[in-house]
Amino acid sequence: RINSDRLWDSLMEMAKIGPGIAGGNNRQTVTDEDGEGRHLFKRWCEAAGLEMGVDEMGTMFARREGTDPSLPPVYVGSHLDTQPTGGKYDGVLGVLGGLEVVRSLNDLGIKTKHPIVVTNWTNEEGSRFAPAMMASGVFAGVLDQADVYEHTDKNGKKFGEELERIGWKGTEKVGDRKIHAFFELHIEQGPILEDEDIDIGVVTHGQGLKWLQVTLTGKEAHTGSTPMPKRRNAGLGMARVIELVHEIAMDYQPDAVGAVGHMEVYPNSRNIIAGRTVFTIDIRSPEKEVLDAMDGRIREGIDTICEALDIQYKVEQVGHFDPVTFDAGCVKAIRDAAERLGYTHRNIVSGAGHDACWINRVAPTAMVMCPCVDGLSHNEAEEITKEWASAGADVLFHAVVETAVI
Amino acid sequence: RINSDRLWDSLMEMAKIGPGIAGGNNRQTVTDEDGEGRHLFKRWCEAAGLEMGVDEMGTMFARREGTDPSLPPVYVGSHLDTQPTGGKYDGVLGVLGGLEVVRSLNDLGIKTKHPIVVTNWTNEEGSRFAPAMMASGVFAGVLDQADVYEHTDKNGKKFGEELERIGWKGTEKVGDRKIHAFFELHIEQGPILEDEDIDIGVVTHGQGLKWLQVTLTGKEAHTGSTPMPKRRNAGLGMARVIELVHEIAMDYQPDAVGAVGHMEVYPNSRNIIAGRTVFTIDIRSPEKEVLDAMDGRIREGIDTICEALDIQYKVEQVGHFDPVTFDAGCVKAIRDAAERLGYTHRNIVSGAGHDACWINRVAPTAMVMCPCVDGLSHNEAEEITKEWASAGADVLFHAVVETAVI
Ligand SMILES: NC(=O)NCCC(=O)O
Ligand SMILES: NC(=O)NCCC(=O)O
Repeated sequence: RINSDRLWDSLMEMAKIGPGIAGGNNRQTVTDEDGEGRHLFKRWCEAAGLEMGVDEMGTMFARREGTDPSLPPVYVGSHLDTQPTGGKYDGVLGVLGGLEVVRSLNDLGIKTKHPIVVTNWTNEEGSRFAPAMMASGVFAGVLDQADVYEHTDKNGKKFGEELERIGWKGTEKVGDRKIHAFFELHIEQGPILEDEDIDIGVVTHGQGLKWLQVTLTGKEAHTGSTPMPKRRNAGLGMARVIELVHEIAMDYQPDAVGAVGHMEVYPNSRNIIAGRTVFTIDIRSPEKEVLDAMDGRIREGIDTICEALDIQYKVEQVGHFDPVTFDAGCVKAIRDAAERLGYTHRNIVSGAGHDACWINRVAPTAMVMCPCVDGLSHNEAEEITKEWASAGADVLFHAVVETAVI
Repeated sequence: RINSDRLWDSLMEMAKIGPGIAGGNNRQTVTDEDGEGRHLFKRWCEAAGLEMGVDEMGTMFARREGTDPSLPPVYVGSHLDTQPTGGKYDGVLGVLGGLEVVRSLNDLGIKTKHPIVVTNWTNEEGSRFAPAMMASGVFAGVLDQADVYEHTDKNGKKFGEELERIGWKGTEKVGDRKIHAFFELHIEQGPILEDEDIDIGVVTHGQGLKWLQVTLTGKEAHTGSTPMPKRRNAGLGMARVIELVHEIAMDYQPDAVGAVGHMEVYPNSRNIIAGRTVFTIDIRSPEKEVLDAMDGRIREGIDTICEALDIQYKVEQVGHFDPVTFDAGCVKAIRDAAERLGYTHRNIVSGAGHDACWINRVAPTAMVMCPCVDGLSHNEAEEITKEWASAGADVLFHAVVETAVI
């Protein structure tokens, strides 16, 4: 079993970097705070005898040598970046859980045949720069590196330039590594495990996602002196699309979800009818057909809404992944580990996207989940117990060691 | 008649200060650009032999002495501040039209019994700091000076501190001046005059207004892994309130208008369900009963919407004025002037709020309006013709001189 106190202390230590305003974290990708978090992780890795590699997307790979260095390594990890109002565990548990696996192997003097690489993927959250899981997406060959370098945040800063600025643009070509298997530990971010009082989620599938960025163009005009029939209100258009997305998601739930979390209004003045709005629709489903059907209905609905309001629209897909089925062998390794350790467990579908979803396309991959309080995540109040964290890390430890072979 | 070339040149000169991005202006209240505009206006006033006074709200009063200095002055003016994406004429025409009145009197060597004071009221637009018509509201005793000093913009800057910072906080106590009459020239900001091909709007009434700032508090949560029934979505709540405001306004139009132009979303991340939204409802009507009925229905509707979505709400009134009936004598002076000058004219109700609406409470007041292209305002593309401007200024000139008595 892993050392649960050490794991917890490391989680608490990392949470001191980029503190939020309500007990959580604001350590968004390629900010100064992200850079600081990376340095701390690097120091810990070096202290554990690992060798650090960094690729051109800034992803960190900390290697513990195997007894047969020619074998492809077993990878384990997640991400250290957070939402602007993120929790202390989303992503961090998977990276520091991976570190705890090698620290425990060191304690026990165990050597594995395959090397083990603890990984911190860059920009998993996708909040500052779309899309989410950016570095793992480039690694898996589904996103284009030159293209994502150009993606901008709300202040017009480019991802590539920010990565360079914080000093974490490595020289290693992205995606060249051979991966024997990849394991990611993550908090559930949903309510099922806690509700059913189960220790371990064996993640068999992941929901698919689409992010549709919508730009509506109406006409700025005075809120007082412009007659109602003359208005071309891009704010009202946005409101109707938000309601549309909700209604469509409700039609398909529990097999789908949908919401708009990002909205910008121009010129955003109390007495100006909005001339332009930009917002992102987030729709998800474990069924590709459902996701596609929602996408179709949303585009049709936007057309109808905009026609009625005499406004123009543009819909751009700024994020997308199909539903994922994880590797049967890796899933079995996790289920067997939970069983062997005596933890209660159940199969589960990941509601969120994860780096594992992309890596699954290029290497055998699976995930282990632990509960989180009230299913709450992407909220500074995100919480887990030390016991939940250590059960998850125990299962990770056994699955990794089993796969890396003693 | 006034000198229409000089008036137009002054309008174009002022428009160089705080240029927008699309041909209009961004000279928001108590910014550096506002300060610069004030300096230009002051230089022009001094060149015309006027004496400048500035009160503690930053309002500028440029006095042309009367033959009987003991008589209360006739005031004329409007505002030099603009929306963030404002036009070149909204407010500016009224101030520089007033300046043109005294310049023309100087040209003609005419002395009036009553002094004439050209006025630039601070923060008419209310975009950076609510409410609109702030300084005239304090002057009229309906707003509290100490209170509005504390009002903050989106960056948390205080109105009083910003006024001091740009160097335009005067020492004169606000509201002490005796006003014989106040005349304000303004572009219509609506389509009626242009549609009916009429030169002059004789403003008999002004619509009433309410600004209701709404704060909705739900719960930040993951857009992917949070089941639909568990969501407390403050963004969806905002969307429903926007639609509600629109529907209620449509029920009462053409006797009412309503919209939401200002919206803020927290934390505004693509994959976080909004935990909080703040936005301002703008409703107007020339009938007080209609305005009150709308207010009531909106508050009821917000309650129902929030109950259904399990979110909390707070509604604060951040701006308000009752419908206005302008002074019969001043209105007549404007109608007579238009008649005498041979301009086509009609009675009109102002759709927008104006400083004249507040000053009407403490002195006989009326307004003259000229058409604007397509009724468009609060848009950088706001446009008028030189002929429209000079017809309006001619009428202003005659009404002012008539009232100030030669
Ligand atoms: N795990 C997680 O929250 N990832 C962010 C990408 C997503 O929105 O699902
Ligand atoms: N005239 C004008 O646009 N005033 C701003 C206040 C309002 O919104 O009516």
